[in-house]
Amino acid sequence: MRGFSLIMSRILDNINTPEDLKGLSIKELTDLCSQIREYMIDCCSKNPGHLGSSLGAVELAVAIHYVFDTPKDKLVWDVGHQAYAHKIITGRREAFLNNRKYGGISGFPKMSESEYDAFGAGHTSTSISAALGLAEAARLTGEQTKCIAVIGDGALTGGLAFEALNNAGAMKSDILVILNDNQISIDKNVGALHNYLVKISTSPAYNRLKNRIWTFIGSNSLRRFIQKVTLSTKLAFVKSGSVFEGLGFRYFGMIDGNDLGELVATLQNMKGIGGPKLLHVRTVKGKGYLPAEQQQSVWHAPGKFDVSTGERIKPSVKKYKYQEIFGETITELARSNQKIVGITPAMASGCSLDIMMKEFPERTFDVGIAEQHAVTFSAGLAAGGMLPFCNIYSTFMQRAFDSIIHDVALQNLKVVFCIDRGGLVGEDGATHHGAFDLAYFRIVPNMTVAAPMNEIELRNMLYSATLPEYGPVVIRYPRGECEGLDWKKEFSPVPAGRARVVSEGAKVAILSIGTIGNRVVKAVERHVAAGGCRPLHYDMRFLKPIDTDAIDRAARECDVIMTVEDGTVIGGLHGAVSEYLSEKGYKGKIIKSGIPDRFVEQGSVDQLMSECQYNTDDLQKKIEKSFNFF
Amino acid sequence: MRGFSLIMSRILDNINTPEDLKGLSIKELTDLCSQIREYMIDCCSKNPGHLGSSLGAVELAVAIHYVFDTPKDKLVWDVGHQAYAHKIITGRREAFLNNRKYGGISGFPKMSESEYDAFGAGHTSTSISAALGLAEAARLTGEQTKCIAVIGDGALTGGLAFEALNNAGAMKSDILVILNDNQISIDKNVGALHNYLVKISTSPAYNRLKNRIWTFIGSNSLRRFIQKVTLSTKLAFVKSGSVFEGLGFRYFGMIDGNDLGELVATLQNMKGIGGPKLLHVRTVKGKGYLPAEQQQSVWHAPGKFDVSTGERIKPSVKKYKYQEIFGETITELARSNQKIVGITPAMASGCSLDIMMKEFPERTFDVGIAEQHAVTFSAGLAAGGMLPFCNIYSTFMQRAFDSIIHDVALQNLKVVFCIDRGGLVGEDGATHHGAFDLAYFRIVPNMTVAAPMNEIELRNMLYSATLPEYGPVVIRYPRGECEGLDWKKEFSPVPAGRARVVSEGAKVAILSIGTIGNRVVKAVERHVAAGGCRPLHYDMRFLKPIDTDAIDRAARECDVIMTVEDGTVIGGLHGAVSEYLSEKGYKGKIIKSGIPDRFVEQGSVDQLMSECQYNTDDLQKKIEKSFNFF
Repeated sequence: MRGFSLIMSRILDNINTPEDLKGLSIKELTDLCSQIREYMIDCCSKNPGHLGSSLGAVELAVAIHYVFDTPKDKLVWDVGHQAYAHKIITGRREAFLNNRKYGGISGFPKMSESEYDAFGAGHTSTSISAALGLAEAARLTGEQTKCIAVIGDGALTGGLAFEALNNAGAMKSDILVILNDNQISIDKNVGALHNYLVKISTSPAYNRLKNRIWTFIGSNSLRRFIQKVTLSTKLAFVKSGSVFEGLGFRYFGMIDGNDLGELVATLQNMKGIGGPKLLHVRTVKGKGYLPAEQQQSVWHAPGKFDVSTGERIKPSVKKYKYQEIFGETITELARSNQKIVGITPAMASGCSLDIMMKEFPERTFDVGIAEQHAVTFSAGLAAGGMLPFCNIYSTFMQRAFDSIIHDVALQNLKVVFCIDRGGLVGEDGATHHGAFDLAYFRIVPNMTVAAPMNEIELRNMLYSATLPEYGPVVIRYPRGECEGLDWKKEFSPVPAGRARVVSEGAKVAILSIGTIGNRVVKAVERHVAAGGCRPLHYDMRFLKPIDTDAIDRAARECDVIMTVEDGTVIGGLHGAVSEYLSEKGYKGKIIKSGIPDRFVEQGSVDQLMSECQYNTDDLQKKIEKSFNFF
Repeated sequence: MRGFSLIMSRILDNINTPEDLKGLSIKELTDLCSQIREYMIDCCSKNPGHLGSSLGAVELAVAIHYVFDTPKDKLVWDVGHQAYAHKIITGRREAFLNNRKYGGISGFPKMSESEYDAFGAGHTSTSISAALGLAEAARLTGEQTKCIAVIGDGALTGGLAFEALNNAGAMKSDILVILNDNQISIDKNVGALHNYLVKISTSPAYNRLKNRIWTFIGSNSLRRFIQKVTLSTKLAFVKSGSVFEGLGFRYFGMIDGNDLGELVATLQNMKGIGGPKLLHVRTVKGKGYLPAEQQQSVWHAPGKFDVSTGERIKPSVKKYKYQEIFGETITELARSNQKIVGITPAMASGCSLDIMMKEFPERTFDVGIAEQHAVTFSAGLAAGGMLPFCNIYSTFMQRAFDSIIHDVALQNLKVVFCIDRGGLVGEDGATHHGAFDLAYFRIVPNMTVAAPMNEIELRNMLYSATLPEYGPVVIRYPRGECEGLDWKKEFSPVPAGRARVVSEGAKVAILSIGTIGNRVVKAVERHVAAGGCRPLHYDMRFLKPIDTDAIDRAARECDVIMTVEDGTVIGGLHGAVSEYLSEKGYKGKIIKSGIPDRFVEQGSVDQLMSECQYNTDDLQKKIEKSFNFF
């Protein structure tokens, strides 16, 4: 592999804004794409990120900025983890060295970071709605602004994207939707629309066209040719693209989205066409880096790696992850309970439901990026007598809030929500922290809300959820590694709503929920080791029903109650304890620790917990301070 | 109009379960449909309900129960307010007299009410997901069960429905989706899909087919003919139905959904076909009752009326409704502020945005049933420099929770959420109460959460939201009539986070938020008139930021603080006050009033508030009791 610095000095070094692209030839732009790729691979090898999608979208980023007049023209990236090239050529080349790092730039587009980020993202399927809003704003203010949404084929299955297509198609707004079709999200894409897109791209009409493109591509009259081809493409695919045509969009494509010349020519041609347009481009996830092209799921976010060998550098000590405890345990439970089914919205490997999927393919459902449907479909399965384990990242679960209330809780249907990535998640930052789950699940009637302190508790809660005493229940656990306990033991039921004394003590009570309890344990030990008195520590285990006996005892015996949670301090554990004690005339103080009432940016979990003042050190100080009241 | 009792005695009186339909001829079933209609019209004239949609779906209900083997076969109604005929023929004929009444049956399907309600509803777009879940459960348990979802063309634009179609089409599950196309929700349907459906139904191919149907329909060989027609329909509409075909569904239709014979024959024919199927039927909203056919929006839920004249009986004293204050005020504000735009997801008349729509059609957007898109589109408009007022029913806003967090609050984009139907809504019951809004909005960083006590405050809050001091803000108001104040006054700004003393007093403080404060005023006056001391009463006006000065004063001067809110007692005003005071070492008691932690059924708002113990009488008693602590 050549050193990237040599190459950079040729073109990439001089690209500080998209304006710097304008004078370049297609050849130079193509070279630039290679340089961006090498830079991106080099950076990501040391500082992990979403490499695969971004490698696929280099030409897209360069072509759009080359053809359109950004930031006046508005470019909205869906999800946005594919937008590294966009970041690198919009003034953030150096900043990219600190991509996703504490104090660095976000791994996603962010309005406050750059005027070139016309709309922020992180979650899927929002780009068409946002671009439509920008387009209508431009129409109303009379500005000549082109609005472009770049959306993946995975994100397109999210209902929000469909709602936006349906609205845009009817309004005849001037927007361009670029469908970046790489056939894969984190895992292989599923769904009828996916099959449909495959059908389009493998149809004889398309292949005839493609052959023509290949034949002509070298000729001098490239521009004129593409102009013609784009029109004929349109004609050739009126039928193939009829799902989009049916929704009022003019469909163009499919073209090779990793061919810069073809992209530029097509976009230039389409620029003059008004109304809602969809350009279908095919890109290769991981493009330009062989290991990433060959193992696309693995290289979605590969961690650190050796650029030359493609070897991924794994941490030496391998503990189980919480998601793996979930995956292993549900599979074990499913062996003896035929009613158990697993549901994931396109997160099978991200949440380890793939473990069950391998053993019980008939009883696991990857429903695509479709959180609402995942929940309502689970409710339907429960109504049909099954016991669904619906497995979603905390931050994405927000999208199914109404389905939780209206379809599950209101009907008291027994769905087991297995919420992964609860609490601060680290480098994915503000859009991805599972900050709100405890608080918003708590307000829903009929729900049991549980958060295990370690892998053994998680395992036992998953087991307990299958018992008849449990109704609809949320089991919420964090991203990352477990405590390293020996968890492969016999199941032991956890009574709903019952807290557990972690350590006996007096004067100060600590009520914690979830795995943050382990930091509390460390803080307590340090405090005691330093000569301090031992506080009473409860692992609450359940936010709802909350163990009022435990709170009563804490209130009776202690003058300070500390609540500790890896979630927003509004409405969660601190809320529940405060509400309960407000009616009891508790005379002591309650001190809260958790995610403050603001959006927390990216960084390591430790950095962020320190920032939020509930890392071990902070807790130790708070314990000390609490005892000093006496 | 003939007396319905005479007719009922003929067939309807003998229909106690769908089993009783089985022996009837098409002629008798058709007569039954007329009888159901008359019964429904008669009942709804005295006891208001969703008449229009249910009149359109009489034949659908009868035909499905006639052809399928319910309750073994599972029938899922989307939204469910069109399911009155279904209720009447599934053992709830007499109970229908108490439709939507306190202690009576729900106006929507409800699993706990009848085994024929395979899945409950109230909100739109859930039926396909639920039916798919039921179908997969049947597949896994090996039961021979047919699963049917009946969904309107309006509900089909909700993203959740699309997510389910996309998933079902790929899974090749055995479900039948009946698209009940009446071209209207509460207001006229909008969106590209709507245009597409119109195109299908007015295409020459369809009309040719329709003519053939009309020619043949009288003949004896009806069954065989329909069998053939259905196949040819399929062929004729492969192209017309290609949006659905693209999603993996076999498309059948369009047929006349108010023609019982045609429906029965088609369903019988389709019953034997496996896999995902969509039957497109055209029905007339209000069918069989001329006034309802002619004015479909008005007769969606007409209130009481005179059956013979079609005259709607309106309450004699007409106060303004809160939604009208919103509609009038936004229009007034829009006159002088060009940046103001209004957004509604298919609720223009339901929320009175239609007032602005008439004057500023270019600056108002009905995006269809698409709450998530409504919010993210609003965020896009805000990013483009506009000032969007996004206007949604509280209960439906739940569906856009992630869009609120991820697209509006996180980016601190100034969107003004105008939340109608906050608090208990009355007869629409459990699925429709705006119980959770205050609590879930409070946990979102950057949001200001306001609830006016009366129409003047609502008007001033709407005005204040346009001022630069306000960021993203929620203004939440209830269903129904205002206080009758003279509200057409000059605007006066309401400082964010500032409470207002309603009446001075001592010992007991009442903190209320929203219009429930008016019941507090009445309770206080009654208490004082009965010789009691006057409590201090704050209209908090804002849940977030909360006025800590007001709470501090209440805590300083009073030994009991009563919180009163027309929303869940978890995480709302009671939560905010408890959380704040928990850190202050408040020695008094806090007594909460609000919606308890369970789902509240239907009834009048007064009945429900009494049940929840925060109607005027209850509040008076609580005030008395609070003073008795001393």
